[in-house]
Amino acid sequence: MALIVQKFGGTSVADNQRIRNVANRVLKAHDQGNDVVVILSAMAGITDRLIGLANEATKTPDPRELDVLLATGEQTTAALLAMMLKDMGYKAQSLLGHQAEVVTDCEYGNARILEIGTDRIKRLLADRSIVVVAGFQGVDIKGNITTLGRGGSDTSAVAIAAALNADVCEIYTDVDGIYTADPNICPRARKIKEISYDEMLNMASLGAKVLQIRSVGFAKKYNIPVHVRSSFSEEEGTMVVQEDSVMEQLVVSGVTHNLDEARITLKKVPDQPGIAAKIFSPISEAGILVDMIIQNTRATGQTDLTFTVPKADYKRAMEIQRQVAEKIGAEDVFGDPSIAKVSVIGVGMKNHSGVASVMFNTLARENINIIMISTSEIRISCVIEEKYTELAVRVLHTAFGLDRED
Amino acid sequence: MALIVQKFGGTSVADNQRIRNVANRVLKAHDQGNDVVVILSAMAGITDRLIGLANEATKTPDPRELDVLLATGEQTTAALLAMMLKDMGYKAQSLLGHQAEVVTDCEYGNARILEIGTDRIKRLLADRSIVVVAGFQGVDIKGNITTLGRGGSDTSAVAIAAALNADVCEIYTDVDGIYTADPNICPRARKIKEISYDEMLNMASLGAKVLQIRSVGFAKKYNIPVHVRSSFSEEEGTMVVQEDSVMEQLVVSGVTHNLDEARITLKKVPDQPGIAAKIFSPISEAGILVDMIIQNTRATGQTDLTFTVPKADYKRAMEIQRQVAEKIGAEDVFGDPSIAKVSVIGVGMKNHSGVASVMFNTLARENINIIMISTSEIRISCVIEEKYTELAVRVLHTAFGLDRED
Repeated sequence: MALIVQKFGGTSVADNQRIRNVANRVLKAHDQGNDVVVILSAMAGITDRLIGLANEATKTPDPRELDVLLATGEQTTAALLAMMLKDMGYKAQSLLGHQAEVVTDCEYGNARILEIGTDRIKRLLADRSIVVVAGFQGVDIKGNITTLGRGGSDTSAVAIAAALNADVCEIYTDVDGIYTADPNICPRARKIKEISYDEMLNMASLGAKVLQIRSVGFAKKYNIPVHVRSSFSEEEGTMVVQEDSVMEQLVVSGVTHNLDEARITLKKVPDQPGIAAKIFSPISEAGILVDMIIQNTRATGQTDLTFTVPKADYKRAMEIQRQVAEKIGAEDVFGDPSIAKVSVIGVGMKNHSGVASVMFNTLARENINIIMISTSEIRISCVIEEKYTELAVRVLHTAFGLDRED
Repeated sequence: MALIVQKFGGTSVADNQRIRNVANRVLKAHDQGNDVVVILSAMAGITDRLIGLANEATKTPDPRELDVLLATGEQTTAALLAMMLKDMGYKAQSLLGHQAEVVTDCEYGNARILEIGTDRIKRLLADRSIVVVAGFQGVDIKGNITTLGRGGSDTSAVAIAAALNADVCEIYTDVDGIYTADPNICPRARKIKEISYDEMLNMASLGAKVLQIRSVGFAKKYNIPVHVRSSFSEEEGTMVVQEDSVMEQLVVSGVTHNLDEARITLKKVPDQPGIAAKIFSPISEAGILVDMIIQNTRATGQTDLTFTVPKADYKRAMEIQRQVAEKIGAEDVFGDPSIAKVSVIGVGMKNHSGVASVMFNTLARENINIIMISTSEIRISCVIEEKYTELAVRVLHTAFGLDRED
């Protein structure tokens, strides 16, 4: 007898056959006596198709109208699931963003949830109705449709779970949980049974693209247990919970890698006050996000400055930096899109010294050169040459005792 | 400087290229200094595709959820047109049914408009914005999405024109106006310049399927001039106006034909009180609409009873009547799906006797047998054998002086 929020992603609702599987999954939880609220994404590929339609219609689609267009994707799946559930003899009702009172700010395309009115959902649940909410969409205070950005249905689900004080928020996806590393490149990767919000935040941003990062922040803030699991199997997945609820505390919980960044170096930059602003302002004005930055001061009063940008923005960033280099009198600009960022993550490392040295020694033993390093309280990341990615992940995975035992 | 409501049908918004044509058409009216409200249908074929999706999902789609699904069609075109108009440098905003406050009853799939809140539209128009309203959809007082039934966008347009007290409601479609007869079977048919609401009501229900009949009733009630015209040419179409505004008053305005009905006859029905109820109750309980009914009493105290039903319901109706005939002791049941209903329509016939005799004589001269007759104040309809349809329409068109003069 619990209140369960279940979210199903695009591949889980890709066609009527799969939506029927979702219906069966939902009914199982309902028939066990639970109250169930379902959050749906659009059918896989639909959001991209709608964006294509908008780009065909206009050079730069108006953000407000683009959201009106995109919102049809989740409206479609929500209606189909609700009618299936009713057809199977159950009480059910679809609610769109404005009907579920998912109130957001006015930032079209990337809106943030301000509050959720739960009266209507609670009334339906009290009537033993299954509530099917269109994910990804909200409404601003003026009644305009907004959307929450890529992966926004995860945020819809966790936010609604928080507003309802749900017992659990289940995220059904096409993977069966969070792994200690990407199983495609690390065959000995294990599924993680429990992981803390903070570790998940670091996993998500580093490439384990299972949960939208914003939704994890939400879950942490409101302490909503999130169960990441497969919609194609009955197996338990990974529970994302508070740090002190994690039973088995390892020093390192996972090894992740990210191939989406590129490196740019400005050589022999005059070491003057305000020089960093001159370098990074034009980059940020172009909407390019800089991730890591390192600076090596030379004895000559000059400095080498290296930073990473998303690979997709690499060419633009290089052009900008060539102009910057000329203006500020740097000797040269060079870049490398063939890099990888390998990270070890674990709340355990807060209490264990020596994680960094194990990491550096492990990589050194394989003659893998570390180009850049960045650290946080629960994460150490190294930039290496891309060709060493698999090797690095595997040896780190073994070194930190994460390998599967079979 | 007028307030113009423009409605574009499914073929006019079938793809982005056509929506661009609509944008140009809208801007022309706007640039002339007019306030413009645009009502859009879904892209041609989309509504049927969505119904197909719902039928694939369920045996009998839940009406509430079907409306949620169908509403995405008009939401899509409204968003695309609004973003195009903005891309072309104009102020524009899409409004969905609930945002335009098109309040309806709760009759999902065939809702009736109760009232329209015009504040938001008026505010946008005052700001010289072009308002793009998703047609076909409304909202009930509980905030549920409703749809207005087939052709409902016409009703949306006329109702919004009425609520705004617009100067004209322009219905853009794939034909260039209302004709005195179907040009496909009557080559001498002429486009009608002006026609009264009542004539249009009779035209629409008899097969000149240009305007949803309910929208004409609305236009009449609120005295909104409706201009039916082509979205593919600049030519003037047909104005549908109050009877006393029609300049050139003909006795007969048009000749229509309808091939969508079938005839059923019960032979030698015992002529007893309550017998009609026994015959027609099971038909109406089956949801079949009976149009014309005639009864020929025989000298023997028996009667022959003939009526028409939609061709699509012919087989079901025949089965029902075979059972009825057995129960009430009628001698036989026979039917004929190969009939046509040919009608002449004109407000002028109210003041001119002899229209019926001209009609009957004209058909008799061609040896066309009249099987059934029904009349109203401004219409005379004859059921004939289907094979004579074209001949009947042409000779009546000539007899009532409607032929084009070239």
